[in-house]
Amino acid sequence: MTETHPPLAPETLDLLRQASTATISYQLTKRGISRTFMVGPQPLRPEERMAGIAFTLRYVPSREDLSAGVHYDNRTNVQRLAVERVGPGEVLVIDARGEIGAGTLGNILTARLQARGAAGIVTDGAFRDAATVAEEPIPSYCAAANALLSSVVHYPADLQVPIGCGGVLVMPGDVVVGDGDGVLVIPRQLADEVARDAAEQEALEAYVLTKIRDGAELDGTYPPDEATRAAFARWRVGDSVS
Amino acid sequence: MTETHPPLAPETLDLLRQASTATISYQLTKRGISRTFMVGPQPLRPEERMAGIAFTLRYVPSREDLSAGVHYDNRTNVQRLAVERVGPGEVLVIDARGEIGAGTLGNILTARLQARGAAGIVTDGAFRDAATVAEEPIPSYCAAANALLSSVVHYPADLQVPIGCGGVLVMPGDVVVGDGDGVLVIPRQLADEVARDAAEQEALEAYVLTKIRDGAELDGTYPPDEATRAAFARWRVGDSVS
Amino acid sequence: MTETHPPLAPETLDLLRQASTATISYQLTKRGISRTFMVGPQPLRPEERMAGIAFTLRYVPSREDLSAGVHYDNRTNVQRLAVERVGPGEVLVIDARGEIGAGTLGNILTARLQARGAAGIVTDGAFRDAATVAEEPIPSYCAAANALLSSVVHYPADLQVPIGCGGVLVMPGDVVVGDGDGVLVIPRQLADEVARDAAEQEALEAYVLTKIRDGAELDGTYPPDEATRAAFARWRVGDSVS
Amino acid sequence: MTETHPPLAPETLDLLRQASTATISYQLTKRGISRTFMVGPQPLRPEERMAGIAFTLRYVPSREDLSAGVHYDNRTNVQRLAVERVGPGEVLVIDARGEIGAGTLGNILTARLQARGAAGIVTDGAFRDAATVAEEPIPSYCAAANALLSSVVHYPADLQVPIGCGGVLVMPGDVVVGDGDGVLVIPRQLADEVARDAAEQEALEAYVLTKIRDGAELDGTYPPDEATRAAFARWRVGDSVS
Amino acid sequence: MTETHPPLAPETLDLLRQASTATISYQLTKRGISRTFMVGPQPLRPEERMAGIAFTLRYVPSREDLSAGVHYDNRTNVQRLAVERVGPGEVLVIDARGEIGAGTLGNILTARLQARGAAGIVTDGAFRDAATVAEEPIPSYCAAANALLSSVVHYPADLQVPIGCGGVLVMPGDVVVGDGDGVLVIPRQLADEVARDAAEQEALEAYVLTKIRDGAELDGTYPPDEATRAAFARWRVGDSVS
Amino acid sequence: MTETHPPLAPETLDLLRQASTATISYQLTKRGISRTFMVGPQPLRPEERMAGIAFTLRYVPSREDLSAGVHYDNRTNVQRLAVERVGPGEVLVIDARGEIGAGTLGNILTARLQARGAAGIVTDGAFRDAATVAEEPIPSYCAAANALLSSVVHYPADLQVPIGCGGVLVMPGDVVVGDGDGVLVIPRQLADEVARDAAEQEALEAYVLTKIRDGAELDGTYPPDEATRAAFARWRVGDSVS
Repeated sequence: MTETHPPLAPETLDLLRQASTATISYQLTKRGISRTFMVGPQPLRPEERMAGIAFTLRYVPSREDLSAGVHYDNRTNVQRLAVERVGPGEVLVIDARGEIGAGTLGNILTARLQARGAAGIVTDGAFRDAATVAEEPIPSYCAAANALLSSVVHYPADLQVPIGCGGVLVMPGDVVVGDGDGVLVIPRQLADEVARDAAEQEALEAYVLTKIRDGAELDGTYPPDEATRAAFARWRVGDSVS
Repeated sequence: MTETHPPLAPETLDLLRQASTATISYQLTKRGISRTFMVGPQPLRPEERMAGIAFTLRYVPSREDLSAGVHYDNRTNVQRLAVERVGPGEVLVIDARGEIGAGTLGNILTARLQARGAAGIVTDGAFRDAATVAEEPIPSYCAAANALLSSVVHYPADLQVPIGCGGVLVMPGDVVVGDGDGVLVIPRQLADEVARDAAEQEALEAYVLTKIRDGAELDGTYPPDEATRAAFARWRVGDSVS
Repeated sequence: MTETHPPLAPETLDLLRQASTATISYQLTKRGISRTFMVGPQPLRPEERMAGIAFTLRYVPSREDLSAGVHYDNRTNVQRLAVERVGPGEVLVIDARGEIGAGTLGNILTARLQARGAAGIVTDGAFRDAATVAEEPIPSYCAAANALLSSVVHYPADLQVPIGCGGVLVMPGDVVVGDGDGVLVIPRQLADEVARDAAEQEALEAYVLTKIRDGAELDGTYPPDEATRAAFARWRVGDSVS
Repeated sequence: MTETHPPLAPETLDLLRQASTATISYQLTKRGISRTFMVGPQPLRPEERMAGIAFTLRYVPSREDLSAGVHYDNRTNVQRLAVERVGPGEVLVIDARGEIGAGTLGNILTARLQARGAAGIVTDGAFRDAATVAEEPIPSYCAAANALLSSVVHYPADLQVPIGCGGVLVMPGDVVVGDGDGVLVIPRQLADEVARDAAEQEALEAYVLTKIRDGAELDGTYPPDEATRAAFARWRVGDSVS
Repeated sequence: MTETHPPLAPETLDLLRQASTATISYQLTKRGISRTFMVGPQPLRPEERMAGIAFTLRYVPSREDLSAGVHYDNRTNVQRLAVERVGPGEVLVIDARGEIGAGTLGNILTARLQARGAAGIVTDGAFRDAATVAEEPIPSYCAAANALLSSVVHYPADLQVPIGCGGVLVMPGDVVVGDGDGVLVIPRQLADEVARDAAEQEALEAYVLTKIRDGAELDGTYPPDEATRAAFARWRVGDSVS
Repeated sequence: MTETHPPLAPETLDLLRQASTATISYQLTKRGISRTFMVGPQPLRPEERMAGIAFTLRYVPSREDLSAGVHYDNRTNVQRLAVERVGPGEVLVIDARGEIGAGTLGNILTARLQARGAAGIVTDGAFRDAATVAEEPIPSYCAAANALLSSVVHYPADLQVPIGCGGVLVMPGDVVVGDGDGVLVIPRQLADEVARDAAEQEALEAYVLTKIRDGAELDGTYPPDEATRAAFARWRVGDSVS
């Protein structure tokens, strides 16, 4: 991992992969943090869950005097440097300014990220070869597909700086979570407690959902009153012993 | 049902569920009504057909002095009141001003609507838990998925008033129809005749399609001339006796 | 075919159907042509590849004095004339100005195009009956589904003229290629050489991808250095003899 | 005035007309209310200040079965009822869903509002005759000019209900303030204290601005430290005695 | 004039220059034509009125193989041909697809159009040198200013064909009218009667406005009842004799 | 000046202030650089010309855990640091991601920049107090006015890094030029020659414009042929001796 942050609790990422972004967003909103769900990035693999540490890459608009000289030198091109620095468990998050007029990367770089153990790829821009990217066994999120080479439109400016992606802030080291609905970002310092409480909430809501499906009214059930919470506690014990 | 309107013919909703929105839109356009197909809402369950009576819910932008006090009290929160008033055969249509920066409801309220016998859910905003909403056996249409709680962005202002959704008018009691293409609204007073004529048109177009697939030219076939209509009449008799 | 152009090499369209739009776009960019991938049109049949000759149809905004008199006369309506003139191997490309507030055509015209041997249909507007259009065994690309009749919003102005579609130029006779990512246009005069070089690039990148999946670093592999190219040449021989 | 609310302090509207929307927005943000400045409405008379009580009018999308029958009957048409109910000191705020494809009202209704003593007119839609509206001596704000009659696109649904305008909530009775930058809304219950504190802030910032123009560094001056505040207090006394 | 159309009544353009686009749009809407006001083009000279015959120019997206060879040859470049063919009393209307990423023309071509006696220039794209264009004594309307040469983004495809501009149809020979609010298009065959009735309506509304400013209620005055119309008739006589 | 770059020729900025952005853009396009004119920023003082050295400031989306702690400490807040580092002749260019939902700075910081000798201020976001900013005698460009404090929506991430603004790249040290049409960026290394050639072109086009206004045809005049260029040379001599 390229940056040092206080370590996460060992179970945090696992817990987050089991919670929906809706649940996690609720836990963040309770703590006063509401601007964390990205508008734009959609999952190419909607069945999968993603949780990892943000590794950021920032694109700015390209200009002909810059893109003319692009040879994709793996030792100087910031895009290539980023791909070769992303570590296991990290999510590459690319700020493409919401510009979908060209790709941000394609299937070969995706395969390399997958080989390096990356936990996912996210951009508010487009992927080239999105259909093939979708076949790599790594969660990936983009706003569109576009066959055009990134360098025509984007210039990779720097990596591991704060960026915006899909309208939300991503700091290197933040925790990035994705599911079928999309992607959200958890401020690093809140990840452990949010993960724990999200797991609790998921269990409770699973119970609430069974009650609602059985015909319970919202009142008393959702949000759960004391009686429902007590019933949940009993159900949960039964559930885990069964 | 919460509102009184002149009753629909008993077969109307069934007929509408068998016609495509394209066919119904044509029947409405013939009657001078063209602004009825929503731009924005997409089906989460594209294989399903929806037909029901509009139950409307109107959101306005939220403001911190309002959302601060939201406890989702099921007896005062207009969103919750709406969910508990939607009756069998009704479609909850939520005016979210096309704002997708937060959800409008999520999977538990969807499950409750399903339990109450609702015929569908439509919004020009987003769903939370859209992936899970899609699993509930009820037709549902939204413009996006967003994990953020509705109250951060939306304030439920009132229910059963005229609203705009996806750029079109929805009056309580209008008939709302959905298929894989999206959602349209039929003015209540036209629903019976449109349903009947749409069924006729579907039968005719099914026949036309077989001719076209067999290599017929458009001329004479589509639109059908007298000869084609006569052949259709014969085919139809044969079709129903076979 | 309605227009005369210098003939394409016999294998060109086949080669293009085997290359991704990402690869073809790269070949065009190398030749200084970058504005060719359409933003907007999405595949209804993402598994299929499309390659054919552009047959263009241009819509302008409709106005009530024009649409009032529309009877869809197959002998005067430009939309209908276009459908009956598209020849085998041609792709009907419809300039709808990116307007998705109505359809541009629906399933019956699609079936007719399919019966005429068309190679595909593309629009930056919407299809009516998009769900049914998707069932016709012909590649089709649109920006949305909309049940509303085209004549309410669009007036078919002329055919086989230069148009814009999805933000890019389409000249009658250009080569139009589509895959799961979307659609791009190849200037006629470049089609043969681009097809040939794209096929080469696809083979090389297939090899590179196996190396990357096996854990190779980008450096030396992508872009391939001399050693990698030599290894590819050996692998390719082996590949074709095996 | 058509609604009853706790009375405002007598000087509140006068104070607000002397403060900029920037200053008022700061005072609201300090109190936790940030979503109050409208995006879209621009002043037709940028030199003027506006402060008044919100009188709301809500438009929904029109539909041909409704607009066909519109005779602009002044006794039933909600738009007309609204104009004839707006009282002295009130600001008519029209929710047009940000739709600028038709006007919302024109110069004659503006003149009537002016004659009735209205304090201003605001819409996130368009005005007809905007050039002439701009000549009426009443502050007016719109997002565009459009010559098309409102009834083709808008149907006036109701008045004096909570609405959204320019992306922010407007409750009947809220205080609406406008200057050259645009329009913001003050929750009724905060208007008195915000007006008072905004006046204080304006005075302090006027002093700060003189210091900055004289070459003072930001540090110590903006935000003002104790020394600057003390100097301001002395200056203010001098200012008011001189 | 490059196209032949039935001649307009000699006073038509003069009458139209004295009516507002709001009034003309009303006259068109009464005749069932509502889609005629352009969204996008704004006046560079808002004090001026424009009325003339549409001369259309159509741009499509540029592509590098086309723009590379552009020398602005005045004998082959369609943009230049258009400028040298626009006749006295004609309005050059340029379909730029709403694309403001480059200019469509600049101040020298504007000066040439002015020297040729053109009645105005309209585009839904941008002008280069818009500040200088605004100084030429010819009404001009654009959606933005952009310094970039048109050929980088636009390719002039043809002239005197039906186009879309600002979302509305423009046929060569249609009548184009502009005022401070923007631009609308009158179908050629309706221009004479619309001009005549618009002049009548302007006179009546001028009278209505005086009544409203004097404090008359809407009811009876706007729309005018019999009494108001009779009073108008008397006032008008007096007005014209005085 | 905070960055070291090769010095500009002493007359470069003066020459650029006398050329229009249209002329400069043409000179850049001739050199293969076309992506330099910003879409979005409009002049608050359209009569003024601006030319200076880019000093960049980058905003990212704010998040509640960051904005909560903002005290606008002039020694740590990056926005404030930027304002106090901008040197004489520099233009502060703020990347606001095109987000106009809050201001980026207001009139007091503008006054401080003016006092420090800044050559201008540019953002693709909004200004607070835009009406008052417009009164400061410094060229300023923004995409909108918005009264809301920047910290609610924007977090100042860093300064003097490459940014995007209005869709174009801005490198620290680039030359930024503005006129009534808007703003463009000249790559540092091209500024001297572009300034010199732009001055030449302005002189020639001034001459061409007089010819066109006198009734000359485009052909031979624009672009100027040898005869016109020779006449220009004579006129220029006469012009400078007179």
